[in-house]
Amino acid sequence: MLTKEGCQARQQRLWNAVPDHVEWLLVADPRHLQYLVNFQVQPLSFSGGERGLLLLERDNGPTLIADNFAFRSATHEPFVENEEIETWYDHRHSVVNRDHAMLKALARLSDRLYGRSGAVEAEWLPVGAFEVLSLDHESHSVTIEPSDPVDPEKSVDLGSQLRRLRRSKLPDEVDLLKQCMRACEAGHARAREVIAPGVTELEVYREVQNAAVGAAGRPALVYGDFRALNAENPKAGGLPTDYALQAGDVFVLDYSVVLDGYRSDFTNGYAVGEPTDGQQRLFEACAAAMAAGEGQLKAGANGADVYAAASSQLEEARFGPLAHHAGHGLGLGHPESPILVPESTDVLVAGDVVTIEPGAYVEGVGGLRIEHNYLVTDDGYERLSNHEISLT
Amino acid sequence: MLTKEGCQARQQRLWNAVPDHVEWLLVADPRHLQYLVNFQVQPLSFSGGERGLLLLERDNGPTLIADNFAFRSATHEPFVENEEIETWYDHRHSVVNRDHAMLKALARLSDRLYGRSGAVEAEWLPVGAFEVLSLDHESHSVTIEPSDPVDPEKSVDLGSQLRRLRRSKLPDEVDLLKQCMRACEAGHARAREVIAPGVTELEVYREVQNAAVGAAGRPALVYGDFRALNAENPKAGGLPTDYALQAGDVFVLDYSVVLDGYRSDFTNGYAVGEPTDGQQRLFEACAAAMAAGEGQLKAGANGADVYAAASSQLEEARFGPLAHHAGHGLGLGHPESPILVPESTDVLVAGDVVTIEPGAYVEGVGGLRIEHNYLVTDDGYERLSNHEISLT
Repeated sequence: MLTKEGCQARQQRLWNAVPDHVEWLLVADPRHLQYLVNFQVQPLSFSGGERGLLLLERDNGPTLIADNFAFRSATHEPFVENEEIETWYDHRHSVVNRDHAMLKALARLSDRLYGRSGAVEAEWLPVGAFEVLSLDHESHSVTIEPSDPVDPEKSVDLGSQLRRLRRSKLPDEVDLLKQCMRACEAGHARAREVIAPGVTELEVYREVQNAAVGAAGRPALVYGDFRALNAENPKAGGLPTDYALQAGDVFVLDYSVVLDGYRSDFTNGYAVGEPTDGQQRLFEACAAAMAAGEGQLKAGANGADVYAAASSQLEEARFGPLAHHAGHGLGLGHPESPILVPESTDVLVAGDVVTIEPGAYVEGVGGLRIEHNYLVTDDGYERLSNHEISLT
Repeated sequence: MLTKEGCQARQQRLWNAVPDHVEWLLVADPRHLQYLVNFQVQPLSFSGGERGLLLLERDNGPTLIADNFAFRSATHEPFVENEEIETWYDHRHSVVNRDHAMLKALARLSDRLYGRSGAVEAEWLPVGAFEVLSLDHESHSVTIEPSDPVDPEKSVDLGSQLRRLRRSKLPDEVDLLKQCMRACEAGHARAREVIAPGVTELEVYREVQNAAVGAAGRPALVYGDFRALNAENPKAGGLPTDYALQAGDVFVLDYSVVLDGYRSDFTNGYAVGEPTDGQQRLFEACAAAMAAGEGQLKAGANGADVYAAASSQLEEARFGPLAHHAGHGLGLGHPESPILVPESTDVLVAGDVVTIEPGAYVEGVGGLRIEHNYLVTDDGYERLSNHEISLT
């Protein structure tokens, strides 16, 4: 779980990033409520898909705006000082449109914001919310109203600012990511035990999910690629099917465990039966590409250089160039910056959490991908994932 | 999965419900994209939490607006005739703020909507989307702009209209709900096998989830109450903990399986060890309450009367009145109308899918709840859930 200190530090970073005249910020992307005050509507609850809004003010503690059932469906107690909660449902009366309850709560803040400079996260704030507030001095994260009195030079692209800040993880975020990693490792270990001819992709998924949730110690979302690849079909991806594994397949398990919106994302290819010579060569090439990519990892490195290092190893083995990213940023979204691709303009920063995931998919030979997750540091990296990478 | 015919019928119902002068509708609640065109960003994918938008026009087929990765992360192929897809990520270049890709796709529709009367789903359409469209003849589902030339009497509360229409399920929705029911039953059957002293709530959850996904034949969301109730703690609810079951507990399994946004929601209380006399009396009272509630179920019945019938049985047994709803509507949300509570103003309609879920929670005795799901018909109901309701 994120900590109060971590949330406060992230709020402070955000305030440092916006112009001085901005007195309030209305945050609406559900991921950013998690990021800033540890509020998430538990996706595994009857309120899954509902949301709250977050008002940050320079001169006041954070205010959470939600309906009463979204509020009580929070995964954890949020770190807010004020709660503007509208009763949507009381177990005695019929209900109104649930969304209108949140808007009614929000409308009560209108006077507090009127006449004061602020910014709204326009990618997620609903039009209805904007209307009930009757704002007059706000800037938007997407475009600025022509009539807006705020100097565009001083305006705030709140959504993009938050995405930029999200790259540099604070210690509580890294701790949470490590919880995801441990759970994800347990799923990989279980996959190694159960993968065998005759077992279906869906059965492997169920075993992996069961093991990951057991290791997490609480319900989690589990998603990713759970597919068998082989010489005839070297490129499959996505959720499992009822396909029964056969000797000669490689089960590519590239999956994520999500806790409180944060996620792991790492991969191994498990040979079904004895690996073929071709699969061994794919594995050696991917391992060399991973090592070459790791050799580039540190703050200040160019994303394009990480890609180039990994891809060149695949090319040397005649399995290249790497047909997809060599890796990407990881945290509350997937993928996110930095993106490790041929024409990347991203430069790594300390606190980036990234994947390196070389893969090769060759008709007549097979498909394979391997992947680790890393915390980028000034000097290099800390590897966060510790699963065993090997075909057998 | 929903069918094309079902989606077209739901679109037609929506057109029938809006004034003739309205030429286009911009739908933004993710549930309503599922409802109208079978588009859902798979929540168990790396795009989980992303969204698309849907433009419906009287004189044109449906248009889906999304970024390329949200589009390819759809659970099923959507029933749309036009796709306005913006490439957000191509595995070669760094990425922009992902939300801006969707807005860029949407902006391309601005000319098509300009000057034509339409309505937007203002509870979910982001402010940024509204801005890039530069609309001039729209009505909103929350409030009407004072300057709006549309007659308020003819305006469209799109979000509330859709919620009203959602109550009457069409056959493809009922088929999908039945898939959820079968999976949910498999989880209940597994719970009956594994519940025993020493087993933790989380272990039961894992077994239930595993069985439900196996029966569904594909990944699904599983949520609900997975808690042990007893004489000292008769009111627990929510996701499982690491509590180890003890003889004398009742494990109340009140849970949902979600496929394509639709869900089952039914309950049984499993005695851990031999049930006590008090638990037997709770069970008999709940069973009588359920039967009494079922006796009221048919189109035209008042939600308040269903509650009263169920609650009176609990009162007769001195375990009443029923402290929460006697049941609620079920489908793409939870709970939703009709709400079966003492002061309900809801009247049942044919096609409503509802729960009946009497429960009693008595200090010194214990806690218990049982629940079935029903499709309301003109004459009565079809029971959709077939799990075994019994303490042992």
